[in-house]
Order: sequence, then structure tokens, then C-alpha cells
Amino acid sequence: MPAFAFHLDATDPVGARAGRWTTPHGVVDTPAFMPVGTVASVKGLLPEQLKAVGVQMLLGNTYHLALRPTAQVVADMGGLHRFMGWDGPILTDSGGFQIFSLAKLTKLDDQRAVFRSHIDGSQFELSPEDAMHIQEQLGADCIMCLDECPPHGVSSEVLLAAVDRTTRWAARCRESHRRTDQALFGIVQGGTDAALRERSAKALLPLDFPGYAVGGLSVGEEPSLMYSTLDVTTLHLPRDRPRYLMGVGRPIDLIEGVLRGIDLFDCVMPTRNGRNAMAFTSRGPVKLRNLKHQRDPAPLDPECDCIACTRFSRAYLRHLFMAGEMLGPILTSLHNIAHYERLMCDLRRAILKNRAADFREAYIASQKPAD
Amino acid sequence: MPAFAFHLDATDPVGARAGRWTTPHGVVDTPAFMPVGTVASVKGLLPEQLKAVGVQMLLGNTYHLALRPTAQVVADMGGLHRFMGWDGPILTDSGGFQIFSLAKLTKLDDQRAVFRSHIDGSQFELSPEDAMHIQEQLGADCIMCLDECPPHGVSSEVLLAAVDRTTRWAARCRESHRRTDQALFGIVQGGTDAALRERSAKALLPLDFPGYAVGGLSVGEEPSLMYSTLDVTTLHLPRDRPRYLMGVGRPIDLIEGVLRGIDLFDCVMPTRNGRNAMAFTSRGPVKLRNLKHQRDPAPLDPECDCIACTRFSRAYLRHLFMAGEMLGPILTSLHNIAHYERLMCDLRRAILKNRAADFREAYIASQKPAD
Repeated sequence: MPAFAFHLDATDPVGARAGRWTTPHGVVDTPAFMPVGTVASVKGLLPEQLKAVGVQMLLGNTYHLALRPTAQVVADMGGLHRFMGWDGPILTDSGGFQIFSLAKLTKLDDQRAVFRSHIDGSQFELSPEDAMHIQEQLGADCIMCLDECPPHGVSSEVLLAAVDRTTRWAARCRESHRRTDQALFGIVQGGTDAALRERSAKALLPLDFPGYAVGGLSVGEEPSLMYSTLDVTTLHLPRDRPRYLMGVGRPIDLIEGVLRGIDLFDCVMPTRNGRNAMAFTSRGPVKLRNLKHQRDPAPLDPECDCIACTRFSRAYLRHLFMAGEMLGPILTSLHNIAHYERLMCDLRRAILKNRAADFREAYIASQKPAD
Repeated sequence: MPAFAFHLDATDPVGARAGRWTTPHGVVDTPAFMPVGTVASVKGLLPEQLKAVGVQMLLGNTYHLALRPTAQVVADMGGLHRFMGWDGPILTDSGGFQIFSLAKLTKLDDQRAVFRSHIDGSQFELSPEDAMHIQEQLGADCIMCLDECPPHGVSSEVLLAAVDRTTRWAARCRESHRRTDQALFGIVQGGTDAALRERSAKALLPLDFPGYAVGGLSVGEEPSLMYSTLDVTTLHLPRDRPRYLMGVGRPIDLIEGVLRGIDLFDCVMPTRNGRNAMAFTSRGPVKLRNLKHQRDPAPLDPECDCIACTRFSRAYLRHLFMAGEMLGPILTSLHNIAHYERLMCDLRRAILKNRAADFREAYIASQKPAD
């Protein structure tokens, strides 16, 4: 039996897809949201707590893991799954995005990127071959080609050069990747330029990747521009492979992405916002530090069955944040992930009923301004 | 049926006691260790996680709760149990200890203490009657009289005056306390002075408290002095009432306390040390930041069945601390509490077999220097 298989249960008239993606560590129902476990830990949460709110697959960041504890240590400890105690599927990114945003990039040519660590300034190099080697050491089920991620708003010449370098790097990644128990995805770049997105996608297709990622979005552009870019990008992607929209986004962005044929998402938003007392709920965002919650016995979200919502009041959650208690970020992060996972689950059922567009309208109608 | 009952299952020849203490929120097997939930949260841990490692009773700090979120908010939210989602027994201290250590004490007379908050400098007063009112609002099962807690090393005159004020305040607490679903404990003071300890205990006995606490220990004195003080203190306490040694301590201190007839303990050490990467194990303390653990696949404590020890390696725990991940403090705090709870449980069984002294010897022999 092959390690990977992608089966589409349904494709909604608008293009939304409900699928099942088989990986060496289990099946993922798509569309799926992957919480971000930056350095082999989804901040503050245990694997069993993630499973309890419906998480099937996690993401780890190669850049962060390569710095701490290093890919070699993870490999020596039996790989990322064993190291972090997560027996479900894992995806790692290539490190490209962080090199071009978080680290200090000191040199970039076709051979490799040279950069300084954001932690202690120590110098590292990352070539496409390095990215493959490191991700093989980490041992995730799904890994990413190294791509060049120029910031939003660069000239079309820079964007074109980045697309073509990303294509050349993708070929080298495909060439050097060895592990058959890992699915290597190509990454489509091209900013918000439709022609460049088409160029990027079409250049990657001959490399016959088992899945394709869409990179370089949600980096500062208007949401409408992200959505229109998705429209012209997924058009060129093979229907029989999973599609992953990297680093996106708000709940509505996930819905809009799914309606445009995206299957996989990751984003730090549920955990980062959760640490900052901002909760996503079935009735709209809630700012838990707001004084109005001081004596509110109501659950954070009456429609949510996570621990934060079934065992505690808004008053208690607010108190935890005001007193600087760790349990506030923990519970709110867990709730936000539960919200994202339920969103994907509900959306999947809507797709199976050909009701994805109705689902979007109902979701938008349910969301009140921040509370 | 009365709300409270204390039943002694066994008293070991050395004086260690195995009991069962019935409270309105359940039975506590003694000797028992109470983790500290300072502001209505045991830092980083959920009630269900505490229960899973054997915790039966928690402690809350009146001083901290009175400042945040205030006793009135807790009362409005249905009391501390409901507010923090803990349905087992809870004990609150009186706030006395924090007023004399953490806050800035600005005035002290027989009527009351006046102090400034350590958070924002705002001024508060606390009389014995206030301490009762606030603890009635919080609604713990077991509450404490307001006591004067002079620092270690004061003159015997100051110590004597504090003992006598503590006695006068205890009478006022007894007089003003109304809730029959709360057990109010008197607190024996007297530093390490045997005569003052006797004086304090004998002055409190006529007030017929349902239990007695020993305060003012583990505040800087040598452990041997704490133990000898316990010897001369428990001597004067009624055998048929629970005895609580406040704020103590290391595992060996708990064992020595139990051997001297103490039934209840609380201490921040398992959680505070846990947050600082120091673990208590069946083989001695472990410093998890130590480089020697970098590639150690072994569990933190092979004899422990907590999540930290059964799901993760020392290498992973070390990585979490080195990367500043919340999960390090969470898992190590949980493990340390599990260690304390198992210690009390094992000690209880030893008492039932009249083997408490042997247990102490075996524990000491098992503990290697920090690892």
C-alpha cells in the first residue's frame, strides 16, 4: 500500500473539496487546519488536548527547529513525532519564509541563502539540498521545497526572479529528496500577479509533486487580493493532489480559501491571539480583557464544547489574563484551535451537501463585531 | 450529618497519622499535600490534570484573591470552587503571611493591619473580622484565623507579642465567623521557641477550633530547628483534630512533618521549582536545563506515571525549557505535584503498616545529589 493517497469525497459546485488524505501517520479529513507547533510544541498545549478538540495534523517550523534543538538532536531522538509525543501526521515548512522575514538575510544567490539567527546572530546557510536533508532528519509526513519569499510590494522584476528561483530550487529539492515516507510539496509563488502565479504553477507541474502549496499570501495584501490570487492560482493546480495555503489565516480567510479549492491551512493566529486574550467564537471575536466580562458567568462560546467553554466562565478567563496566569493563554489557545477545527469540520459537511457557499453566508451573518 | 469529620485510621508508633478528613466538598486522605492555586489557578494546570495525579485538596491565597479579582467578584461568581472549576475541597489562608512578607506593611495595631498592595501600592486594611468576611466570601471548606507572622530572627519580646496578638485575633475570628460549612483553624505561632509554641497552643485550645495550623516555620531557620519545633508543638495539639503545617516544604520536610503528627501541607515548591526546570524525582532532584539531558531518551522519572514521564523524554523537556516553551513549566509542575502526591500516598500506606520511620530511611537512601 502506498504511503500517501488523496481521495476526494466531493467537490462542491463552487470548487470546494472534501477529501481524505492518507499519510504514514494517519488519515486527514480535508479541508483541514494545522495548528502551529513552532519548536515541536503547540504553545502551552499537550498532544492529547489537541486531539480532544479535533486536531488531526500539526505543523512544525524547520527554521526554528534547526536552531533549537537542531535537526540532528530531533533525528537522534527518533524524529519529530516521537520527540514531541504526537503520533498523527506532521507537516514541516522549508524554513524559507522565516529566513526572509524573521532572520537577518546576509546573502542570497542561486546556490543558497545565508542568514543570521534571530536568537543569537550566529550564521547559517540553507540550500535546497540542506532544506531536504534537515526535513528528512525531522521526519515529518509532508515537507516543503525551499522557496524564495520576497516581501509584499516588491517590483515585478524581483517577483519574477523569485518565482524562477523558486522553480529551480524546487527541481533541486525534488532531485535530492530521498525518503519515500514523506510527501514533498512544491510551492507556487508570484505574489498577487496572476501571470506570475500561472507561470509558477505551470513550471512546477512537470516536477509532478504529490501536492502543491500556495506561498507568499497573507503577507500584507488586502484579503480581496488574496482571494482573487487564489482564484487564478488553484485554476492551474492538479485536481487530484492536496493544496495547501501557507500561513493563512483568519476564519473567514480559511472559508474563502476552501471555496477556492484549498485543502490544507496553517496559521499561528488561534494560538497567538489566544495568548493575547482574543478569542474567536461562533458569535464573533471576544476580547477577554474587556471589563464587561468581569462578572460574566457565561461561557466564552456557548456553542463550543472545549474545556475552556464547558468548565469556566468568561469572568474566570478574564481574571486569568488580568492576573497574568498561564492558564488564560492555555485555555484561550485551546478554544481558538477548537473553533478552527470545528469550522473545518462543519465546512466539510457543508461541501458534502453542496452547501459551501451557503455556509460562508451563514458564517458571515453569525459574526458580530468584537465583544 | 455534620459537614466535617476527622477520622484517624491509624497512628504509627512514631506519631505519624493516617486519617480521613470529611469536608463539604469531599473526603481528603491524610497526610495530604495541597498544591497552591494562588489566584484561583495552580499555575498552568487544569483541575482535571491535578485530579489525575492524585490531588484531593487545593489552597488559595486570600491576600492575592482579595487584590485580584477581589473576594466580592469571587462571591458574585458563586464562590471559589465554581469560579475556578474545582469541585474538591479548598483551603484558604488568612492573608496574614503575605501582609507580613510580600506587601508593604504600613501600620499594625491590635485592631488591624494596614498595608499597601505589592501590585500597585494601593492601601488596604485587614482586621480579624475582615479576614473572616473575605474568606466567607471566597467560600473555601477550610479557612484560617488572621495571625501575626514576624520574620525569622526577631527578639523574643517581639515574638511573644506576636503570639499573644495572634491569640487575641483568633478569639475575634472565632467570634465573627458564621458559615457552618467552613472549618476555621487556629494558627499556632512562636517561632522556634518551645515555650512560646506551648503558650500559643495552650491559649488556642479553649477556643476549640476544629483544626490547628502551625505557622511561622520554614521561614529561614535550619530544617533541624523546624523539626524540633514541630516536636514540641504537636505535643500540645488535640489528637482528634487535623493539623496543618503551613507553607512547608521540600519532600523530606513533609516526611519529617508527617512523622511528627502533621496531616496537611501546602507549598509553592513543586510548581515554582517546576517552572524553573527543577524536578523532584524518585532518585533525587533533576535540573532539566543541564546539557547532559540534551539527547537523553529516558523519562524524567521512570517510577512516575504522570503525563510528563510517560509521554516525553528528558531531551524533550530540556528542549522546552531551552526554547522558552510554556509546556516545559506545565509538564514539570505537573510532574512535581505528582511526586508530592505519590509521596503522601506512599507514606499513608507506610503509616497503616506502622512503617513510617522505615519509609523515611528508604526515601533518604533513594535520593541522589542533583542530576
